[in-house]
Amino acid sequence: MTRFRLTVEFDGRPFMGWQRQAHGPSVQQAIEEAITAVTGEQAVIHAAGRTDAGVHGRAMTAHADVAKPITPFRLKEALNARLRPAPVAILGCDPVADDWHARFSCIGRRYIYRIVNRRAPLTLDAGLAWQVAAELDDRAMHAAAQHLVGRHDFTTFRSAHCQAESPVKTLDRLDVHRSGELIEIEAAARSFLHHQVRSMVGCLALVGRGRWTAAELADALAAADRARLGLNAPPDGLYFMEAVYPAETGEAAQ
Amino acid sequence: MTRFRLTVEFDGRPFMGWQRQAHGPSVQQAIEEAITAVTGEQAVIHAAGRTDAGVHGRAMTAHADVAKPITPFRLKEALNARLRPAPVAILGCDPVADDWHARFSCIGRRYIYRIVNRRAPLTLDAGLAWQVAAELDDRAMHAAAQHLVGRHDFTTFRSAHCQAESPVKTLDRLDVHRSGELIEIEAAARSFLHHQVRSMVGCLALVGRGRWTAAELADALAAADRARLGLNAPPDGLYFMEAVYPAETGEAAQ
Repeated sequence: MTRFRLTVEFDGRPFMGWQRQAHGPSVQQAIEEAITAVTGEQAVIHAAGRTDAGVHGRAMTAHADVAKPITPFRLKEALNARLRPAPVAILGCDPVADDWHARFSCIGRRYIYRIVNRRAPLTLDAGLAWQVAAELDDRAMHAAAQHLVGRHDFTTFRSAHCQAESPVKTLDRLDVHRSGELIEIEAAARSFLHHQVRSMVGCLALVGRGRWTAAELADALAAADRARLGLNAPPDGLYFMEAVYPAETGEAAQ
Repeated sequence: MTRFRLTVEFDGRPFMGWQRQAHGPSVQQAIEEAITAVTGEQAVIHAAGRTDAGVHGRAMTAHADVAKPITPFRLKEALNARLRPAPVAILGCDPVADDWHARFSCIGRRYIYRIVNRRAPLTLDAGLAWQVAAELDDRAMHAAAQHLVGRHDFTTFRSAHCQAESPVKTLDRLDVHRSGELIEIEAAARSFLHHQVRSMVGCLALVGRGRWTAAELADALAAADRARLGLNAPPDGLYFMEAVYPAETGEAAQ
């Protein structure tokens, strides 16, 4: 048996999310079925994150155990051939130690949220970004975002379906950058609560429109009350960018 | 009657191309039908370029004549409302002089061609870039591209269906940049022949793979013979980026 680390890119639009669902297609199921087709083995993969329906992955990390003798290169090529035409691609496939775990060994997650800030509807970016028509003040958003950085009870920014034991998380980075009509919000933490990034982005958009002050955002956080959530951003703009593991903290994701 | 300059973004995938076709949907038809729906008038629009099936537009420029009194803002909003759900958006709508012409007044066109240089299939970029599995030497491509810059007979890089009177064109710029797995090729000229950008990109890819030398590219150009074309790149990666007009040469497209 060899444990393989898989780096996965996917377009979240046709899926009910990463995790296997009874009621529709998932990225996990697509990959597990491809592994079974290639190896003849039942497969269960584990991933660094569980993205919702419509959320995308640029470099999700997962692992799979394979008994059949096969090189990483051939496994990657065979999985990509089987995955077509589903918009899921294996970018990397590397043997790892048997006790390496994509979820439990992970010490950092990074997401990017893309907003296209313009009145006109999206064409090329439809489903790949959140279109916000009202002009957003990205500097005010960035300044307000710094109130969320650090160790806090993020109950306000947590889905009712969140299964985490504690609502206390440490947010390492929440940066807002504008390049023309594109606003990118980068969030990094050891781990996130369910819907945390989308909920933070939704409230930052309220700040950007001038409907919330930075102080009101800080108050909403301090209240630790889901009813104080201002807005949950849609899944379209969210990308899982990187999972970080101990031995390679300094490496850039590809 | 007011002449309006329209700046148009579109996803080329569902269209047979910009120009009206008997046998399928076109961007031109979608916009003309939207104008008719808004104004009750027959509409014929003219554009700076005529893109092929599957080619995209980030800022195509067109013009339309409208008799109904309507502000540019309301016309733009109404057209975008009517265009939905087609992936066509009017980014700009501005009144211009009655003798201003999107095609004949245009003094510069700029395209970008996107290559994703990796073995894994595309997911988020499927249809939006050309996937090239073999490793490309972008520096060799850029150096070779400089042989094409200037005034030349571009017959080698011209479609058999090209309607231009002369195959002689002046290519102002052909730059190749790499950022990770993304290679962008930027082409600028007063005007281009049919398929010229895709044909130049296809041959540059042969250079990048080491199958052609820069001298062989120069020879193919000098031959002025379509049979010497090495490869025509697919439409997926091509974007019409900008049309330049005399009064605003210094302006950046939005």
